Parts: sequence; structure tokens; C-alpha cells
Amino acid sequence: MKELQNRIMIEGVAVNSEILKVDSFVNHQVDPALMLHVGQEFAEHFKNRGITKIATIESSGIAPALMTAQCMQLPLIILKKQPSKVLNDSLYQTQVTSFTKEMSYELSVSSKYISENDHVLIIDDFLANGEAATGAIRLLRKAHATVAGIGVLIEKTFQPGREKLAAQGIEVCALARIRHMEAGHITFAD
Amino acid sequence: MKELQNRIMIEGVAVNSEILKVDSFVNHQVDPALMLHVGQEFAEHFKNRGITKIATIESSGIAPALMTAQCMQLPLIILKKQPSKVLNDSLYQTQVTSFTKEMSYELSVSSKYISENDHVLIIDDFLANGEAATGAIRLLRKAHATVAGIGVLIEKTFQPGREKLAAQGIEVCALARIRHMEAGHITFAD
Repeated sequence: MKELQNRIMIEGVAVNSEILKVDSFVNHQVDPALMLHVGQEFAEHFKNRGITKIATIESSGIAPALMTAQCMQLPLIILKKQPSKVLNDSLYQTQVTSFTKEMSYELSVSSKYISENDHVLIIDDFLANGEAATGAIRLLRKAHATVAGIGVLIEKTFQPGREKLAAQGIEVCALARIRHMEAGHITFAD
Repeated sequence: MKELQNRIMIEGVAVNSEILKVDSFVNHQVDPALMLHVGQEFAEHFKNRGITKIATIESSGIAPALMTAQCMQLPLIILKKQPSKVLNDSLYQTQVTSFTKEMSYELSVSSKYISENDHVLIIDDFLANGEAATGAIRLLRKAHATVAGIGVLIEKTFQPGREKLAAQGIEVCALARIRHMEAGHITFAD
């Protein structure tokens, strides 16, 4: 997606070979017009697939996921991060460990909003090591739903996220793919 | 706002006299069409006030705030919750204590995205005791911005949030105002 790539080129900050900051238009300050275009792009890519719900992990995926949900006229489910395991019959949980952030959390979803009849599209901001994405898939499968695919704004192709998801049969749609970074410089894959 | 009141009547769950769950359309599952209508309502109410930015506290205010930002064609700033104080020249922070949730966090915003030239509309899901709202105002004022007002989806008029904000000269626009709750029963103020 040219518009997103241009924004990353102009406003993205490659802190080092691993960390990309897109705080000025995705994570801290959010550009709603860009998010709408992102939503339109995902809606077009994933149309006619029988998707019933959009899911995202709180909180930086909420903006693009909401716009995708609006464009596809589907409900959005926000998978919640909780510090500890909760014993509750109506709640599915799975532990996610982020190696980059050196922390773990319980990802949870209520059985009221996801069922075996759901075919879910996951939307998130980044795909890097795939820890959050594989956690979301594990959780949705615990809830007996199927996963239709994953849409991310930014993929770091030099990290193993896509391979992990492909190994599980999950299709990834990335709107901007970054092949290489070093401080101050970003190289796209396409 | 009739549409929101109806949804609360049909889907909202008054757990007791203080806790209202709107998980099926606001907090956990989100209805994007309703959020767009909410955004249109706030955009209409706060038009022609010279507002430059929309702000919200992560994460349950993001959906209505994003739609308001889209309708007003303004950037959205997500005020971040952090567990501890960060020493950083470019970051403003203030501590917020939630008595209902019995926890504290540091609310933070980068000086890059809020300045003395900003006139900020705060959007959130609930107004009850006003702890989060007064924290957001304190933070925005630390960043030398002015606060144009607060828009909330649901106000509990039997809690002191509005009075606290009025005492600071802040206008509150609430789309649904709840006067009284008991388990299984909700009474609106209007």
C-alpha cells in the first residue's frame, strides 16, 4: 500500500535494526484518514471469504481493526490483555510471552462473543516474531472459531512471524513489508 | 442519543448499583456502526470550537475517539497508561489512581504531539468518578494545551465526575446519562 509506505518513509523512525517507531501516525498519534484507507484495503483483500468477525489485540491494533470492521460491516472483538489468569467458565485464556518486551500476559476472550460458527480475521499493527499473532490464533481456536487470515500494517520480513503463521496454514496480508532496517534507514521488500 | 440508550436498555447489564457492563457493543465486542454514529454526534456537538486534536485514554475509549477524529478530520492522540514513571524529557506524565479498580498508573503523552497551540477534545467511554478524565486534563495542561471539553458515551449522574469537571470549567457532553442502577435495572436521567 503506497500511502502507508510513504508515511513510513517520511515519518517512521528506524531506531536500530529491529525497532521501528511509527508513533506519529499509528501508535500514539493516529491518523484516522489513513486508518480508513487501511480498513478499505483489508476489506477489499479479504472480501467474499465468509468472515464473520474482526479481532485485534488491545491496544495498538484497535484503530485499523475498527476501520476494517466498519468497512466490512462486521463486529470487532478486542482480545484483552490481563496480567494474570482468571478462572471463569465463560472466558478463554492463553499466555503470550513477548521476547522483545520481555513480559508475559494472559490474552482473553469471552465465550459470549466468539463461537464455533465464527470465521475470524485478525488485524494488528505489526508482524515481527509473531508472538502476539500466534497467541491470538491459539485463543480463537480454543474458542472453537476458525481463523480466516491476518492483516497487518507493517511486516518485518527479516523476522520469522510470517513463516510461523504459514506453518499453521494462516494467510498473511501485510500492507508494508520491511526487509531491512538500520538506524535512520528503512528498506522495503517490494 | 436514542440509539445508544436503546442499546444500553437491551444489551447493557447492571451488575449492581455501581457497575454497568456494555461488553457486547462498546468494550469487548465493538459495534463499528454505533461508534460511527457516536463520532458524528460528538463532531456535531463540538463543531466550530477551534478543536485541533482528539485525545483518549487507552484502551476502551479508542473506538469512539477514532470515529470522532475521523468525523472532525483531526488527529487522535492516545494517552498511554504505563505502570511506572519514565524519566524522559519529551514525555509528560501524571499519576492516575482508580479507586474503583484499586490501582494506579502513569498516564503519559509525548511533547511531540501536544503543544500550547492545541485545543483538545477528550473522548472516553464512561464518566463516573472522573478520575481518568481529571488525569487526562491534568496531563494535557502539563503539556500546555487547553481542553475544549469531554465527550463520553455513558455518564453515571449519581457519581461525582461531572461536578469535578464543572469545577474546573470543563464542559461535558454525555450521550447517555444514567441516574440510578440496581441489579438488572437501569434508570436514565433524561
